[in-house]
Amino acid sequence: MNIAVAQSGGPTCAINASLLGVFCQALKEEKINLIYGAKNGIEGIINDNLVLLNSVIKTDEDIDLIRQTPSTILGSCRYKLPHYKDDENVYKTIIECFEKHEIGAFFYIGGNDSMDTVAKLSEYVKEQNKNIIVIGIPKTIDNDLVFTDHTPGFGSAAKYVTTTMLEVIRDSSVYDLNSVTIVEIMGRNAGWLTASCSLLRANGEIAPHLIYLPESNITVQKIIDDIKKVREEHKSIIIAVSEGLRLEGLDTFDCGMPVDEFGHANLAGVGKLLKDIVANTLHCKVRSIELNVMQRCSSHISSKTDIDEAELVASCAVKTAMNGITGKMMAFKRVNNNPYTIEIEAVEAKDVANKEKLFPKEWINAEQNNIEDAAIEYFLPLISGEQNIKTLNGLPIHFKI
Amino acid sequence: MNIAVAQSGGPTCAINASLLGVFCQALKEEKINLIYGAKNGIEGIINDNLVLLNSVIKTDEDIDLIRQTPSTILGSCRYKLPHYKDDENVYKTIIECFEKHEIGAFFYIGGNDSMDTVAKLSEYVKEQNKNIIVIGIPKTIDNDLVFTDHTPGFGSAAKYVTTTMLEVIRDSSVYDLNSVTIVEIMGRNAGWLTASCSLLRANGEIAPHLIYLPESNITVQKIIDDIKKVREEHKSIIIAVSEGLRLEGLDTFDCGMPVDEFGHANLAGVGKLLKDIVANTLHCKVRSIELNVMQRCSSHISSKTDIDEAELVASCAVKTAMNGITGKMMAFKRVNNNPYTIEIEAVEAKDVANKEKLFPKEWINAEQNNIEDAAIEYFLPLISGEQNIKTLNGLPIHFKI
Repeated sequence: MNIAVAQSGGPTCAINASLLGVFCQALKEEKINLIYGAKNGIEGIINDNLVLLNSVIKTDEDIDLIRQTPSTILGSCRYKLPHYKDDENVYKTIIECFEKHEIGAFFYIGGNDSMDTVAKLSEYVKEQNKNIIVIGIPKTIDNDLVFTDHTPGFGSAAKYVTTTMLEVIRDSSVYDLNSVTIVEIMGRNAGWLTASCSLLRANGEIAPHLIYLPESNITVQKIIDDIKKVREEHKSIIIAVSEGLRLEGLDTFDCGMPVDEFGHANLAGVGKLLKDIVANTLHCKVRSIELNVMQRCSSHISSKTDIDEAELVASCAVKTAMNGITGKMMAFKRVNNNPYTIEIEAVEAKDVANKEKLFPKEWINAEQNNIEDAAIEYFLPLISGEQNIKTLNGLPIHFKI
Repeated sequence: MNIAVAQSGGPTCAINASLLGVFCQALKEEKINLIYGAKNGIEGIINDNLVLLNSVIKTDEDIDLIRQTPSTILGSCRYKLPHYKDDENVYKTIIECFEKHEIGAFFYIGGNDSMDTVAKLSEYVKEQNKNIIVIGIPKTIDNDLVFTDHTPGFGSAAKYVTTTMLEVIRDSSVYDLNSVTIVEIMGRNAGWLTASCSLLRANGEIAPHLIYLPESNITVQKIIDDIKKVREEHKSIIIAVSEGLRLEGLDTFDCGMPVDEFGHANLAGVGKLLKDIVANTLHCKVRSIELNVMQRCSSHISSKTDIDEAELVASCAVKTAMNGITGKMMAFKRVNNNPYTIEIEAVEAKDVANKEKLFPKEWINAEQNNIEDAAIEYFLPLISGEQNIKTLNGLPIHFKI
């Protein structure tokens, strides 16, 4: 039989490593003949827009370069599959593509939206008694998938965020004056990536002095009070805030920009908003830094553990499919922190679909402005190790189809 | 005799390497006894706030860690020395500090403001017939010092900017839709750092499709027209803009935020401003990315050439001082591009002070929206090579006093 693989949702540094995991394991499986890649996620199946990976990935160097290339070499999509009871046409188109190319197994690398696709599609295939296996491979920098210890892509994002935070700490303390530096970090509604900054404490850093997550219950006034308190001991204050942080009590502060009828300034992210409020309230030097897409694409500083695991979990997906199992997502189960040991298991994709795993309340301190030490040993192994990046003219080499 | 060294102006990844260059060469000079570091630039001399570097930097590991630590281990300042004819008091305080600690040579690592300090101070010392040598060591990510081929700190900033730009290009092309990504890059009034993105062409990239420098003569309407033209061939458009870009004809566009009486929206940088204008005018997905302080502090991806040269030029400063030469700034003279060869010479600090070297007009294309190939061979050697970064727990180790 032939197989197909696709990449979906927001880019990460590890999603191409997972593609490799599928590809390299499939080459080893006697039952598998051709390996197709679908362009732009499930849309590539719907539009019959496939790439024959066997003729694209040819050498060991290709494999090394794909492993160090960020984003998705096949492209991605944000397509939400309707339920087949609401619209069966798109399912028929998908099955048509699978049958035309004799695709017996489909691997979908993505987050909770993509696991919704895996769950719905595998249910439809069963309903229709088609002999097609559908397996999900986890991926998101947000680390917000349920039933898995962590997600591929998160470790590399955390390594970028913590390394950059460390460098920003050095940069911010250069002048002998009071300053506040606010660093806004991705993660949607979950605080995992922001909270990972706490692991700088493992290397003796005190900063970031304040860490605010979407899971924190925090008012603007409390943040101002927190800064005043930290300022008693530190001149250069570093604050990590999640992009998803909800600021209560915004309407009583001057944020230097138009506020709508709900009291929200919708022209800027939370970091920029806080910057203006802090500057107007505490009258000191304030800078806001948005780590932006660099968090999800800085593969020059990806975590070796993350990249290795992304490849490993995907190879296990192929093995699972070869055992005739369908409708599952591959997941990590942590066995031990030190030495770091994981097991890979298959969980129901439908249990993962559309759910969010938030940062545990018990790892947020009582003041809601920092992270408990217990989280540090969870984070540490995930950012461990560096990839050996191949360069040309002093720049990383990326693989392109 | 004893010597003192200080670091001034905005941080870079190479300013600590220059400190090492002074320190290690001074250890070799028989005439030099103690090596002092002044905290926060010239302010450390004025306030007699010195660190004895001989007792702070002790092992080879200390040296390795200082080399890979961004920002300034001694702190920095933005202090502008008055002319001694206007205010002699501060000069007397400085000389007092030098004489108290028997400092016979002072090395000031900094940009054009710092060279103003070197020029004024050395002039005063001569006037007073004091036997104290003052030498400037260049440093700025802006690459805007005259009479030197380039400046330490620039190569590492350019390596960060180009590597990140490459990764952002991968990230931005992930979805199958029209998009514009605007990356705002530092450099004050000079376009060197923004223009360095052109060297991605050496590795086969077409993007960034448009590059706008402060030296370009450009209207907002021209930028819109340029984007429309690029869109005929490319779905995902990448634009590099200098923070110092002046946008002419802003008042006729909707930039989604309050504009003052001069037609300037002063709440955001030029990237954010352009983002709003492009989104409101072309109605496509637009993202703006500010590379912020990461450009000057991402030492995890510093250029080995830059770090080596920063150390070398500083060691030459010590040798120059030992020859009794004062009032000079050490400078690079490029002998050859391929193989890359430089010479180090001493130029008058007063000729460098307060001047800016802008990006050459002849390296900007006729359309004022991209960089000529001739610039690429200038940039390439400067980002060459990677440092071998020592890590602990997956994070770079920094040196702290």
